[in-house]
Amino acid sequence: MSRSPDRSRFKFSWNVRVGFSDTDAQGIVYYGRYLPYFDRARVEYLRDRGMLGMDVGEEGHEFVMRALSVEYHAPAVFDDLIEVYIRMARIGRTSATYELEASRVRDGVLLVTATQTLVLVDLAERKPMPIPDAYREAIRAFEGEALEA
Amino acid sequence: MSRSPDRSRFKFSWNVRVGFSDTDAQGIVYYGRYLPYFDRARVEYLRDRGMLGMDVGEEGHEFVMRALSVEYHAPAVFDDLIEVYIRMARIGRTSATYELEASRVRDGVLLVTATQTLVLVDLAERKPMPIPDAYREAIRAFEGEALEA
Amino acid sequence: MSRSPDRSRFKFSWNVRVGFSDTDAQGIVYYGRYLPYFDRARVEYLRDRGMLGMDVGEEGHEFVMRALSVEYHAPAVFDDLIEVYIRMARIGRTSATYELEASRVRDGVLLVTATQTLVLVDLAERKPMPIPDAYREAIRAFEGEALEA
Amino acid sequence: MSRSPDRSRFKFSWNVRVGFSDTDAQGIVYYGRYLPYFDRARVEYLRDRGMLGMDVGEEGHEFVMRALSVEYHAPAVFDDLIEVYIRMARIGRTSATYELEASRVRDGVLLVTATQTLVLVDLAERKPMPIPDAYREAIRAFEGEALEA
Repeated sequence: MSRSPDRSRFKFSWNVRVGFSDTDAQGIVYYGRYLPYFDRARVEYLRDRGMLGMDVGEEGHEFVMRALSVEYHAPAVFDDLIEVYIRMARIGRTSATYELEASRVRDGVLLVTATQTLVLVDLAERKPMPIPDAYREAIRAFEGEALEA
Repeated sequence: MSRSPDRSRFKFSWNVRVGFSDTDAQGIVYYGRYLPYFDRARVEYLRDRGMLGMDVGEEGHEFVMRALSVEYHAPAVFDDLIEVYIRMARIGRTSATYELEASRVRDGVLLVTATQTLVLVDLAERKPMPIPDAYREAIRAFEGEALEA
Repeated sequence: MSRSPDRSRFKFSWNVRVGFSDTDAQGIVYYGRYLPYFDRARVEYLRDRGMLGMDVGEEGHEFVMRALSVEYHAPAVFDDLIEVYIRMARIGRTSATYELEASRVRDGVLLVTATQTLVLVDLAERKPMPIPDAYREAIRAFEGEALEA
Repeated sequence: MSRSPDRSRFKFSWNVRVGFSDTDAQGIVYYGRYLPYFDRARVEYLRDRGMLGMDVGEEGHEFVMRALSVEYHAPAVFDDLIEVYIRMARIGRTSATYELEASRVRDGVLLVTATQTLVLVDLAERKPMPIPDAYREAIRAFEGEALEA
């Protein structure tokens, strides 16, 4: 179950330590508790770009989760330090897809891989809105050619 | 650690089953996971009174948590059915205090006891607001003399 | 965003009410909070079959999450009553895949669809173990021909 | 609601950033989400003492939560950086009581104050066990005279 993935495609990562409240009665990190780790990784990825809180249109336009998939490769336990690698892999007209990979810092074991697709919506009407060009270009400037449109 | 408390002072209870995500690596219910159980018990207590969503003043006036205390008497485990006893013990000018007690249905063992004090505030200004008389009277009609002012 | 999916392929469902702790600052159910709902649906599905706690081999053999995917179709809010439809769609040598669909009871709006694949492992060694025939047959007796092998 | 408490009695603090999953539909940090922050603060307090994972007796002797109380003074919101001050205030024969205080880094506003009492138990029998002298002395060496017995 230990894999040594090619992480060269990631230009950003963020570390998180497993809290006791993240564990479950199997003695490992509850599978759903990786999602808050992913959220923080997306936030830190955008903060690192200077894009956190960047204008994405009118008041009330926000990104909401549209789809996610996660694969669990090995379990983490209490107090493990986890490195979450993240990149935006695709940015479309109204949606953005992130790729994430988490591994244990101590031994490099791959824990989980995931993709998350968020769509920019008008929160009141839940209608998809076009992602502003400035947002798209700021991501492209960082991710380069690897970013799909 | 098993106690057989006097539950005659409670006129309402609500049952909840422990989910796997409520457990932690000690194999028991994580101590913080009782709080969502208490929330649901408060909601069902108010629904039972016909008071859920009852007008408590202007738009944006809501109850927020001001203080809580919890004592842990015995642990619960995955799939335990828990009965949460709840009563409003005191209603002041701007705040309401609930008493809660949770026990395992199977054997009646007392798990936790708690009090929670919520204050009615204007969410925007975080200023305490007077609880409407109709709200206070609806509670008093149910709890009777035991309700402190 | 409202869909009226064909639910005839599901023979079991379980209802859950959204608690306040399930919501987030967008005013809707946090996307990760559906996972505990799915957990309870799997538990109730197995309980309904008389299979909860069924022997799946040696001590320490348990199902762990291997992969999941979720699509979010419409948001739920505080106090919504949600019906979670669930079926086992595939049972292989060491893994089982569930299909889930959640909709709001009040108006039938489809909220999320998901698949979850769990693998039976020896918890200590994290090695996949064969699912006992009795387990497989109990599921097949319920799901019938639709169950993939 | 803003207070400028005397923090001179705390010799240790630890910072945490509010994640999106920590918020609720009132737009603030859900009151129960401070507990995982407190857990991490206790862990880092002990790590800083070199006491994390310190032997507390036989296998299966662990600290479990016995009582907690929390007061909420002001709300935190998404992405706030919070400083959690922590000290062990009392160490008895079988239990330890922590005092905690959390404030927002940006403006120093006091958010919550709390006490948590943990008891050392034999997890299997749930029987209180005496805290080893070495553990007690390591804490006393740090907290000094302020530590109650």
